This record gives sequence, C-alpha cells and structure tokens, in this order.
Amino acid sequence: MTMKDFSALVADAADRAIETRRDLHKHPELGLTEFRTASLVARRLSDLGIEVRTGKAVMDSASRVGLPPEEELQRCYERAASEGADPAFLPDFEGGHTAVLGILKGGKPGPVTALRVDMDALPILEDDTQAHRPHREGFASAHKGVMHACGHDFHTAMGLGIAEVLAARKDDVHGTVKFVFQPAEEGGRGALPMTRAGVVDDVDRLIAVHVATGVPSRTFQTAVDGHLASIKLDVRFKGRAAHAGGRPEEGRNALLGAAQAVVALYGISRHHAGASRINVGTLHAGSGRNVIADEATLVMEVRGDTAEIAEYMAKRARAVLEGAALAQDLEVEITTAGQTTTAASDASLGAEIAEAVRDMPDLNVVPGLSRTMGSEDATFLMRRVQEKGGRAVYAVVGSDLASGHHTPDFDIEESDMPWAIEALARTILSFKE
Amino acid sequence: MTMKDFSALVADAADRAIETRRDLHKHPELGLTEFRTASLVARRLSDLGIEVRTGKAVMDSASRVGLPPEEELQRCYERAASEGADPAFLPDFEGGHTAVLGILKGGKPGPVTALRVDMDALPILEDDTQAHRPHREGFASAHKGVMHACGHDFHTAMGLGIAEVLAARKDDVHGTVKFVFQPAEEGGRGALPMTRAGVVDDVDRLIAVHVATGVPSRTFQTAVDGHLASIKLDVRFKGRAAHAGGRPEEGRNALLGAAQAVVALYGISRHHAGASRINVGTLHAGSGRNVIADEATLVMEVRGDTAEIAEYMAKRARAVLEGAALAQDLEVEITTAGQTTTAASDASLGAEIAEAVRDMPDLNVVPGLSRTMGSEDATFLMRRVQEKGGRAVYAVVGSDLASGHHTPDFDIEESDMPWAIEALARTILSFKE
Amino acid sequence: MTMKDFSALVADAADRAIETRRDLHKHPELGLTEFRTASLVARRLSDLGIEVRTGKAVMDSASRVGLPPEEELQRCYERAASEGADPAFLPDFEGGHTAVLGILKGGKPGPVTALRVDMDALPILEDDTQAHRPHREGFASAHKGVMHACGHDFHTAMGLGIAEVLAARKDDVHGTVKFVFQPAEEGGRGALPMTRAGVVDDVDRLIAVHVATGVPSRTFQTAVDGHLASIKLDVRFKGRAAHAGGRPEEGRNALLGAAQAVVALYGISRHHAGASRINVGTLHAGSGRNVIADEATLVMEVRGDTAEIAEYMAKRARAVLEGAALAQDLEVEITTAGQTTTAASDASLGAEIAEAVRDMPDLNVVPGLSRTMGSEDATFLMRRVQEKGGRAVYAVVGSDLASGHHTPDFDIEESDMPWAIEALARTILSFKE
Amino acid sequence: MTMKDFSALVADAADRAIETRRDLHKHPELGLTEFRTASLVARRLSDLGIEVRTGKAVMDSASRVGLPPEEELQRCYERAASEGADPAFLPDFEGGHTAVLGILKGGKPGPVTALRVDMDALPILEDDTQAHRPHREGFASAHKGVMHACGHDFHTAMGLGIAEVLAARKDDVHGTVKFVFQPAEEGGRGALPMTRAGVVDDVDRLIAVHVATGVPSRTFQTAVDGHLASIKLDVRFKGRAAHAGGRPEEGRNALLGAAQAVVALYGISRHHAGASRINVGTLHAGSGRNVIADEATLVMEVRGDTAEIAEYMAKRARAVLEGAALAQDLEVEITTAGQTTTAASDASLGAEIAEAVRDMPDLNVVPGLSRTMGSEDATFLMRRVQEKGGRAVYAVVGSDLASGHHTPDFDIEESDMPWAIEALARTILSFKE
Repeated sequence: MTMKDFSALVADAADRAIETRRDLHKHPELGLTEFRTASLVARRLSDLGIEVRTGKAVMDSASRVGLPPEEELQRCYERAASEGADPAFLPDFEGGHTAVLGILKGGKPGPVTALRVDMDALPILEDDTQAHRPHREGFASAHKGVMHACGHDFHTAMGLGIAEVLAARKDDVHGTVKFVFQPAEEGGRGALPMTRAGVVDDVDRLIAVHVATGVPSRTFQTAVDGHLASIKLDVRFKGRAAHAGGRPEEGRNALLGAAQAVVALYGISRHHAGASRINVGTLHAGSGRNVIADEATLVMEVRGDTAEIAEYMAKRARAVLEGAALAQDLEVEITTAGQTTTAASDASLGAEIAEAVRDMPDLNVVPGLSRTMGSEDATFLMRRVQEKGGRAVYAVVGSDLASGHHTPDFDIEESDMPWAIEALARTILSFKE
Repeated sequence: MTMKDFSALVADAADRAIETRRDLHKHPELGLTEFRTASLVARRLSDLGIEVRTGKAVMDSASRVGLPPEEELQRCYERAASEGADPAFLPDFEGGHTAVLGILKGGKPGPVTALRVDMDALPILEDDTQAHRPHREGFASAHKGVMHACGHDFHTAMGLGIAEVLAARKDDVHGTVKFVFQPAEEGGRGALPMTRAGVVDDVDRLIAVHVATGVPSRTFQTAVDGHLASIKLDVRFKGRAAHAGGRPEEGRNALLGAAQAVVALYGISRHHAGASRINVGTLHAGSGRNVIADEATLVMEVRGDTAEIAEYMAKRARAVLEGAALAQDLEVEITTAGQTTTAASDASLGAEIAEAVRDMPDLNVVPGLSRTMGSEDATFLMRRVQEKGGRAVYAVVGSDLASGHHTPDFDIEESDMPWAIEALARTILSFKE
Repeated sequence: MTMKDFSALVADAADRAIETRRDLHKHPELGLTEFRTASLVARRLSDLGIEVRTGKAVMDSASRVGLPPEEELQRCYERAASEGADPAFLPDFEGGHTAVLGILKGGKPGPVTALRVDMDALPILEDDTQAHRPHREGFASAHKGVMHACGHDFHTAMGLGIAEVLAARKDDVHGTVKFVFQPAEEGGRGALPMTRAGVVDDVDRLIAVHVATGVPSRTFQTAVDGHLASIKLDVRFKGRAAHAGGRPEEGRNALLGAAQAVVALYGISRHHAGASRINVGTLHAGSGRNVIADEATLVMEVRGDTAEIAEYMAKRARAVLEGAALAQDLEVEITTAGQTTTAASDASLGAEIAEAVRDMPDLNVVPGLSRTMGSEDATFLMRRVQEKGGRAVYAVVGSDLASGHHTPDFDIEESDMPWAIEALARTILSFKE
Repeated sequence: MTMKDFSALVADAADRAIETRRDLHKHPELGLTEFRTASLVARRLSDLGIEVRTGKAVMDSASRVGLPPEEELQRCYERAASEGADPAFLPDFEGGHTAVLGILKGGKPGPVTALRVDMDALPILEDDTQAHRPHREGFASAHKGVMHACGHDFHTAMGLGIAEVLAARKDDVHGTVKFVFQPAEEGGRGALPMTRAGVVDDVDRLIAVHVATGVPSRTFQTAVDGHLASIKLDVRFKGRAAHAGGRPEEGRNALLGAAQAVVALYGISRHHAGASRINVGTLHAGSGRNVIADEATLVMEVRGDTAEIAEYMAKRARAVLEGAALAQDLEVEITTAGQTTTAASDASLGAEIAEAVRDMPDLNVVPGLSRTMGSEDATFLMRRVQEKGGRAVYAVVGSDLASGHHTPDFDIEESDMPWAIEALARTILSFKE
C-alpha cells in the first residue's frame, strides 16, 4: 500500500469517525449506562474482523462504585434498545457492565500495544442556541440534561477510526493491538474494574488519549504528566424534621450540619508534601421553608499530588463530616463514589511516539513531559502496565474549543479528527518490538 | 324553621362539604394557582344566590409577592381548565389573582360579619400507602408533589357549607356576611393583597378559622392568640464556576458562601423582648462534583413574637447574607417571598362566639385566649378590622389528626365537619348588632 | 424607742454603712477570695452581739465549683492579712470558704427571717478618670483589675447596717433573723454550697436583695421574678502545635476548632418553651503567628427561662463542642464553672413587705411581681425555703447609676443607703409570726 | 600565616563566640528592641578595627512595620542600658533602629562580599527544667517570656567570630566584606528597611546564613531554596459590649465575628500555581462570661510559593475579614505587620562555597539546591543583590537540636560553632574577583 493509499484510507476512516462522533453526541450516555455506545462499538469492531470481548469479561463487577440505581440502569438500557443499540451485543452490558475490549492480531510478530479511549457523557444541559454548532447542525443531545461535554464522543469515534485503519493494514501490524473502550471515566469509576479484569496485564505499551484540555488544534502532546489522585465522596446527613416555629428544639438540622461541614471541609490543613484540593460540588438539603431539614446530600471530592495526600485529605474530610454529625446530632453516610490515582508518563515512550509522527505535515509535536492538574482514572491502567514492566503515556490530541470542558457550549474542532487518527495509527504501526 | 329543620339543613350541607373537601383534596393547587378551586367556589356561591367578587376586584395585584413564574401560572391554569374548572369564572383569576369574596345580604338590618378561609395546598408528595385514607378511598392528590397537607381543603369546603346554610336561612341573617376565600396562606402571600383591596374595611366582626393545630376533635377554641410575625426570604448567591482541580482560585464559590451564611444565620443574637425564630428550609447549590459552584439558593424565614422582632431578625439576616457575599466575592439577591404579622384575638368576641354555641351537645368550647406559635397571614385581615374599629378572632375547629400538619400522611377527621358548619352558622346568626 | 430615735439610729447606721461600702469598694475581692470582707463582716456582727458562724460550718465545701487555683487563694489570703483582715476570723475562711452567717435572736417569740446579701467583686479594671466618683474621692479599687462593679459592696454594707439597727432594737424583734453573707454570686458559685449547708432550712421568710438593676433611686421593688437559669461552662481544647508553613498537616488546630465551635454554639436551636441565651464571653487561643495553635480556652454560659431549657442548651452545647473536637482531632475538656436556677418570688410576701414600708416618705414602693432577665444564684436559697414550706422574694433597692452594671465606671447613688436600711429593718420588725 | 595559625585563630574566635552566644542567650531582645545586642556588636566590630555604621544610616526608618509601642521601646532601651549595653553606641539605636553594618576593607583589591546574620529573639517562655542546658548551665533568659529559640544568638556570635578571623587576616582579604547584622527577622520586619537603605546595593556575593532548620551537625548546605513569600497581618475587630442575658440584641459580637472569619480564612481556595499557606496564630477576644465581646484580635499570616500567590491569599483574607465584619456589624482594622518574599539561591555561588570548604575534615558539604518551606526576609536582601547583578545564596549551618525551632527547650549544639566560623571565613577568603 502506498502512502497515498494510506492517506485515502485515513480520510475515509475520519469521515466515518466524524459521523460516528455526531451520532454519539446526539445520544450521550452517562457512566455505566453506555449501553447504546458500547453495543455500537462492539458491532463495528466485530464488523472490522477484530476480536471483541465485552461486559463482565473485561470488567471486574465487584470493583465498580457509584453504580446508578437499578431503575436508572433499566431505563437507560431500554432507551438504548429503542434508539438503535445493537441487539446482538446489548445484553452483554446489562447491569452496567459497559466495557468493550477489541483485540487485533497483526500479521507480524511483535509487542502488545493498547489504546485506551473512554465513552461516557456528563450530566450537563446542552446549550440550545444557534451559536452552538451541535444545535445548529442538528446533532445536539437528544437526552435532556446529558451531554458529551468533555469530548469522549470524539475519543470513541477516533478509537473506531484507528481500528478501521489498522484493520485495513493488519498485515503491517506487528504484534497485538488492544482497543480499550472504557466506560465511566467521569467520576473515576471505569478504569479500575477494567484494570482488575486484567485487560492490560500483557501490554508493553499503553497510550491513553484525551482531546483538547487546553492544547490547541494540530498539536500533539505525546507524554503528559501530573494527574492528581482523587477520591470522590457522596455524603448524606440524616436528621429529624420539625416545625421550625413551633418545636425548633425537636429538629435535628441536616442542612445546618451540612453547612457546618462544608465550611470546615474547605479549611482542612494543606499538606506540605504537595498540592491538594477539596471541593464540595453540590449541596441539596431541606424540603420546606419552615421545616427543619431532615436530610442533606453533598457530592464532593478531594485531590492530591500523590495518592498519600489524597488519602490524607479524605481522612480529614471524614473526621470533619463526623464531627458535624456529632455536633448536630445527625447520622452521616459517607460513600466512596469513585477514585483516580497518579501515574507518570514514560518519557521514552513519548519520544518514540514523537519520532513516529515527525514527518506529518502541519503538526506541532510536543514530545517532552508536560503537566496537567486534572484527574484521570486511566492512571490505574497506566500504573498496572508499568508494574508489569511495560511503559505507558497519557497523550493529548490538541483541539481548539468553543468553550471549556464541562460547559454547556463545549464543542471540539472536528478537523482535528483526521490527523489524530493518522498520528495514532502511524504510531502503532511503528511499534515493532 | 324549626331546630330540627336546621339540623337537617346542616347535615345536608355537611355531606356536600365533605364531598367537596374530597374533590379539592384530589385536585390540590399551590398558592396563587388555585384556579380550579376559586372558580368552583365562585360558581357555588353564585348558585346559592350570593354576590360574588373575584380576582383583581378583591386582591391588590401589586401587593402580591412570591408569584410563581409565568409558565407555571399558565400550566396550572390549563390544568384547571382541563379538570373541570368553571369556565365562566376561570378567566377572572388569570395571572394568579385567585381570590373570591362572597357577599350575603341578610333579611334584617345588622352588622357586617366576615368569615375567612383559605384555599391553597402545599408542595408535599402525598403518602401512597393503604394506611392513608385519601389514598385508600381514592381521593389522594392527582397532582404529584402537591398536597392538601394543612387542611385548607377542609376550610374551603366548610366555608361553602356555612354559606349554604346561611343562604337557606337568609331571612334570619342580620346585616351582611362576607365570605373571604383567600389564596396563598402558605408563604403568607394572599391575605395582604386582599386586605389592601379593602375587603374587610367595613367589617364589624371577623372570624378567621383553622382546623386542628393540635386541638382535638369536637373542641372549639373561639379566640386563639400568639401568632408569630414572619418574614419569608428567598436568597440567591451568584458566583463563578471554575475547575476545582485546575483553577480553584478563579472560582467564586456560591456553595461555600451559602454554607457560611447558613451557619451565621442560625447564630443571630436572640432578642430580649420576646421569642424569635430563624430557619433555612432548603439549600440547593452547585452543578458537578469537580466544579466550583456558581449558584446557590436558600429558602428561609424569620419569625418573632412581634413584628419588630421579626424585622430585627430580617435586618440581621440581610447583613449576614451580604457579609457572606462580600467574603466569597459573590453577588446576592434577597427577595421577600411572603410575610405575616401578629394580631391579638378579641377576648370579648371569643366570649360572644362561645355563648352562641354553648347549647351544642358534645362540643367542648374553649372561650379564653389560648396560644399558638404558628404564623398566619390572616393577621393582616385581623389587624385591619381592628384598626377600623371592629373586632376579630382567630378560631380553631379541633380535629384529631392522623399525622401532623405539613406531613405526607396528614388527614383530618371528617366527622368534625358537621359541628363546625353548625357552630359557625349559629355564631353568625347570633350577631344582631 | 420613739420613731425619732429609730430615725437617728438608722441615720447613724447608714453613715457607717456608707463608710464601710467605700472601704469594701477600695478592697474588692473576687468570688471565694473574700477573705478580708468576710473577716470584717464576722468581726462587726460579733461586735454587735450577733452569733456568728463561718467557713465550712455554713458552706458545703464539696459543692463549690470554679474554685480559684491554690496559689491564687494563697495570694489573696495574704493580701487580706496585710490589708487589715480581722486576724481572729481570717483563718476560718482558708481555702476559699468565705461565707458568714449571723444569727440574731429577737426578744420575742416569732418566725425565722433571713436576709441574703452577697460580697464578691468582678474582674474589671476600674475607671481612673476624674469623672468617676470612687476615683475622684479616693476610694477606687486598690486591687488592679478587680472592681465592685455590681454593687455587692453596697449589699454587704447595707446588710451590716440592718444588722446594726436590728441589734439595737433586739427586744422588738420577733423570732430569729439570719443574716446570710454569701460569697461568689458572680459565676453562681456561692449560694448552692450555703444552701446545701442548710443555712436556710428553717427559714419562714427569705428576702434576697439587689441594688439598682435598672430601678431608679428611692424605688423599692418588693418581689421580682424572672431570673433565667444559667449554666456556666469553661472549655479547653487541646491540639498539637506545628509549624504552619513547614508541616501544616501535622498540626491539630485548637484555635480553628474553637472558632468552629463558637460559630455552631450561637446557632443552637431555640426552644419553643421559653427564652434561652448562649454566650461565649472570652476566647483565647494560640501562641505565635506561624504556629498552629495547640490550645484554646472558652469561657461561656447558657441561660433559659426554666432549668430544663438551660439544661437543653447545655446538652446541645456539649455536643457542639465534642463535634468540633472530633472534626479537628482535638481533645476537649468541659468544666461546669457555676450554675444558677430559677425561682418565683412569693407575691404575698412581696405584699407584706410593701405594707411594712408604706408609711415611709418619698419612697416609691412597687409591690407586684416584676420581671428581670438576669441570673442569680440566690434562687437556690429561695427554692430551698419554698421547698421547706417558707416564702421567699427577690427584692430590689433602686438606685440611679452612673453607668451600667459590670462596666468600669459603675457607681451607685449612696443616698439610697439610708432608706434601704430603714425599709428592710422595718420590714423584718414587722414579721411577727 | 600557616594553616596551624589559622586553626588557632579560629579556635580562639570560636571560644569567644560561644561565650558571646551565651551572653546573648541570657539577654534576649525582641525584634526592633535589640538595643543591647546591637550596641555590643557595634562595639566589638569597632574594636576589631572594622568600620561601623548604625541605626538610621543603615535602616530606612519609614519602611519599618510592626514597631513596638513607644513605651515598650523605652522600657527595653532602659533595660539594655542597665544590663551593660555599650553607652557609646546605644543612642544610635533609639526608637527601634537596631541595625548594624560592619565594613572591612581587605588588603587586596577584589569584590564586595556580604554576610548577613540576624539578632532578634522570640516571645517564648524558656524551659526552666534541668533537662534544658541553658537553664542547667546558668545562661537561660533573664527576660521572662523572651527567648532565643531560633538560634539568632548563635548567628550574631558566629558573625562576630568570622569578623574576628577576617580582621586578623585582613591582608589576605580581597575586596570588601560587609557584615550585615539585621534586627527583627522574626515577623519579617528588619531586612526590608536595610535593603531600602542600600546596604547591599554594591554587593557581588551575599551569603545569608541560618543554623539548624533540620540539617544535622557538621553539615553545610551552601544553597538552599524555596522560601515562601509571606504577609503577616494583625487584625482587630471592634463591636459593642452588651449584657448577653438582658440585651443580647444590642451587642455587636466581635468574638463571634472573629470566629466566623477564622473558619472562612482557612477555607480560602488553594491556588493552582503553587503552594499556599494560611494560619491564624492567635485569637484573643472578650472580657467576661456574660458580656458580649466587644473586641477581638487575630495575629495571622499567609504564605505562597510566589509573591503573587501570597498577595492572592492576602487579598482573599481581607475580603473574608471584611465580610465577617459586615455580617456581625463590626469595624475591622487590618494592619500589615511584616512581609517576606521569595528568592532563589544561585547554584553557581553555592558551588563556589562548596569548593572553598571541600578540604575541611569531617564536614559534610551539600552543594546542590535544597528546599525549605520557611519564610525569611533575607530574601529581600538576596533579591536586591541579584537585581543589581550580584549573586546570593541562603546557606545553612547544620546543628543537632535538643528540640525544634520556636519551642521552649530549643538549644543548638555549640560544637558546630568552630567549623561554621572556619567555613565561612575560608569561603570569604576564597573570593578574589
């Protein structure tokens, strides 16, 4: 196959990927409910002649946290069925086991390479103004209050595009390529179950990819570092309602307890050994103006430069929450809703990738280690690969954004799709031992 | 007409009132959206030959606070139309002017007497277990999340029952009887607009009635005192969202500001001159776990033994809210969502009522002043009557409750309807000068 | 003895009492260190031929709380010795047993009457400007930081003046008069030990007296009610110091814990059954700017219309303090430093007193029950008398003040001394059965 | 001069330095009151034939912050006079201008080198047990509550020892040596006035020295980095006192306002660009248990990896303090009590120093950049030198400590004095251009 043929192949795959991205954007699914997405991914991989493993086979069921309630799982499952999910694969994902692993055996002997992309959307109400392209061009979310506002639609579509290219060039592939389609990156709930299911235990090189994150279009950062470890907590205070005018002393005020906890949580002492973060993202409490609130819920998280710092923050947070409960005579339930860790990108692998793409025109390649402050559960996969003697990087496909990640008018630049597919396909083709 | 005829008349009216109460219970409407209720009240009064005034004629539009959003008003209006609202009267109430005044001219000269009842329901999800009679007997709320959980359905039905009895005995009535069907007692939003529209300016005797409030069945308290003045505030903090991990210093944390405000609000200094209360009933803030919350809303109220104490509490609350906004670099909007005042029941009128009903069998009449700690906007009507030289009482029709006011399984004892209608009809018939 | 003689006797006693008051004002002693004061009281009573009981005989040692440290007791004892304490009585009071009981047997049979006055000063730095009479006329406190700023100097002197008059008229006294010179009213620490020692167990009538409290000169309130029950708590948080820059996570921040506790303490829910109060009077924490504070102390109290409400507040306060300790990983010690209760004045006794003094010229006598919001441990004595079948009142000798109680420029109007002595002497002489 | 002579010279100087250190330890003086210390330093330098500049000549008077009250300055001045301050120099330091600059002109042409040591003590009560060597050997603080608990006595004595050695070897010195004896390092108040007076404007190499800081004995770190910028604030809330029982609503509670501020201060959002710190070191509020506190004072500081982060923290802190004042109706005064900045040590200079001392036996030399988390105002001097084109390092003379810096039983190991003097003298002698 000539270079020209390769370009045509990429162009074709990219067209289809953009189409796929728009379909996924229109049908966003929250973490662990990616029933439609996962079934379509499995179908496509299968159609490309790639071996497909799904559901519990690639996801340790017991390691999942933050699972939606049974009714919600059911509702989403049915919605997926009604919106074109692939009936052959759909049942594999029941109960929230929405992971897919594709395995492509190359025509030549060689190493095991893994590419990790994620598939879940966010609980954000999408912008419905003409200024927002997905709305303007008719592919805005059909699921009210759910939105692909972090680019995982792009990731999934790109992953399929790369699979398409490599499947077409199967004979040139050395060794094995594993396509890790992960659910529930948001909330840090999907990578750990896949890690524990062993999907990357034999991997020599792992590339986890994210789009944008502040990096401009046509820029490829091959080895990003500095993810903060995070622990996500859901908190529920339970008190006793009372008529606030008539019997105030009979109430046990969950709203007040939650407020006291919030104020104290932000005041947890910083740690000398590195950066830490704490955020209470949402607080909902109370039922009526003149009723002492009997329930309050907090959705929060802590982060740290190291897993130890994150643990320190979580431990202190628990004490603060329990102290508030004691002070206000409340019960408190604290549930771990997700977790991410830290992982270092291997600079040598970053350099190899940069080398593989250096001839691509109009592409700005940044090979050195650069730094982010986000959290990512791909770090669990990366750590496992490194523990087993392999190497891993977190790479970023730059893209100019209409608006920041996690905002209602988030939109990526689709013209970054072709080069992204080409760069990663070239990279994987370059790994020969 | 003989006493026996009178009893039969009451029994008949009471049967109809219980039926009405069940119909209203099944179709509860929140304050200022009592479109169906008000239209049916107007129709019935009209059918009884009573002069009816409605809407803006009996309600000062500009004095209303806490009006639901336009869409909500529209939605409720349409629902009323579809559920049997009287088409002749319905348009009178558009835009949330859901007050009705009935005026019955007696056959003999005499004083002006007013009877005030309220019509609105509460935002409570009704119990749907077999233990709850409205559910068991098929008249539970058809409007999910809205419920007559304070007995105003009983009040409205009882008012119509009394009107029915007095209309039938019109020739024996001295002077004029005004039936004040007030919207939006909850939240303290309906009485002030009716007061300002002058509906009780010419009234010599006002009887405001409430059912239950801890008083047992077959007990009639003719003059209750001690309502706390209250001021209801809606608060909205506006900050700026930011990625809590990546750019924490760019956020302006509305959730944190709200929590600090809550903690400080409960700590406002007590007032030496009498009881005070403060409650933040609900707090909602934030959008996502890792996003610094850009908005928080509080629904709160303050109360005081006197209007001055309530004002003191509200003034201090405003300072606390503004201080929290300053500390966290937020904007804060504070809206008065309702208000009640205090009013003393006239003991002499209480005694007159007790005298009028003293021959009723099996009725425990409590004539002296007794004390509550609730808030009521009937106090505005009572104060106006007293300012104009009339007298007023707040009377309580006792009833054994299945569960407390404002709870999901609240239910009154319907066997208290007949004596209540009889007692109040007798009372009004006894007023001759 | 003629009325004229009686007047001369009173005038004489009042002159001496004013002199005594100035001597006591100059030598103020804090609660349980009234060594000099008590010894001079004992000496004077003894010189008047009154039986004297002192120290442990009239004070249950084990019931004392808030005892000053041993060194402080020793220092004050020595100061008293060096400033003219009576050497014969001084040893009786060692270790902080500074109570005196005088027992005057009248010449005629009759009831047992008790008069209770208190002797302790306050930890306030006295005003040293010319505007302040004690300074101007040379009798300001010689004990820096200690001051008679509540009029207990007046009480003690008045008590001795009354004793002087009654001793001179012994033959006209019916029954027995007990003069209760109580230590440590401030902080509520002196009355309970005297009550438990049984000093009023046989008393038919108890008159506890206070000067001023907002009542103007030449006004005598014979039966005041409404003292709040109070519980005084001393709190100490113990954490761990750390370098706030270098090892912030190693600290356990007692200052922060104390601040969180304070904020929550003021927010304890009001009680429907009556007024409540809470105050943290002082807070001291920390050692250096850049050291995480390892210790914090709070001096606080709660009050309530009833002992039950005060107990409720104290219970909630303890939970708040323990919650703050848990949240910040601190130890907390909570010590009861004093306590007062409530007691009702007997209106009938108030009326008897009013009757006894009604002929006194230029005296405004207020016999009915009036209301205060202060706390007083005389309530323990009053309750005991009432439990044993006697009657008790709390009476107020009005006096125009230069400045409020507990302020640095507090000063009473000495011209209220003569009528106060006369009124109480007349009153006691009037009790015949 | 031979090496042996040099060793004898050092040994001699070290003996004297240890004696000096003990004398200074016994007579500790707080920042800007180092009257005795500065006068003795000036006298000694002068006796060594070194040019001496003092007081306002080397200290910009207007740049001083956190100056003690006039009476305190006067009291310390008189104490110094009575405890052997040098009468010839003492007047130079009046009013808190306690800086000394010594200028030694070497016998050979060459660069300008500056050595900076500090002279002030801390407000700490020294341990008085036998376990504490200064107490055991009779040189513990004679000034109760003031203590050399950070080793500045060692610094000053060592500086004089080095001056003694270099003065003796003057002919071998290239260029000029400036001995900067700085007051008030604690609180960050002394270096900026000296910097602004221009004392290091012509300096080619600046060595600021500190003893210990966690570095063990016989270890010399030649270039330490990572000082946090700090801003020290003194805060005073002013409210209004009131009787907490009788008129709670009239109070404006400074204690409560301060507590709310503290809780919010610790919750200021972290900054993404680097480490930050905040600490409220002390809080004092209130006067009496039952008085609403009318005053509260906080001693606090913020720190940051960069001056910008410290400024961010200070700006947010001010908003929090003002918000608390607004919420509680208080006045607030915020005074800047001191400030330090950041400065980078020059690695090349660190290497030069390491080279100069590499032949010293039994000395562990650590030449690379190491990191601290403390704050130091020597950074102002370092920055100025670097701005003017010179180089600067912060060097640490290791010493095993009995207890941590700023603790009551802090004590350095005196056997580190000889090598410290030798190492720094050798270093300065090695600078030839």
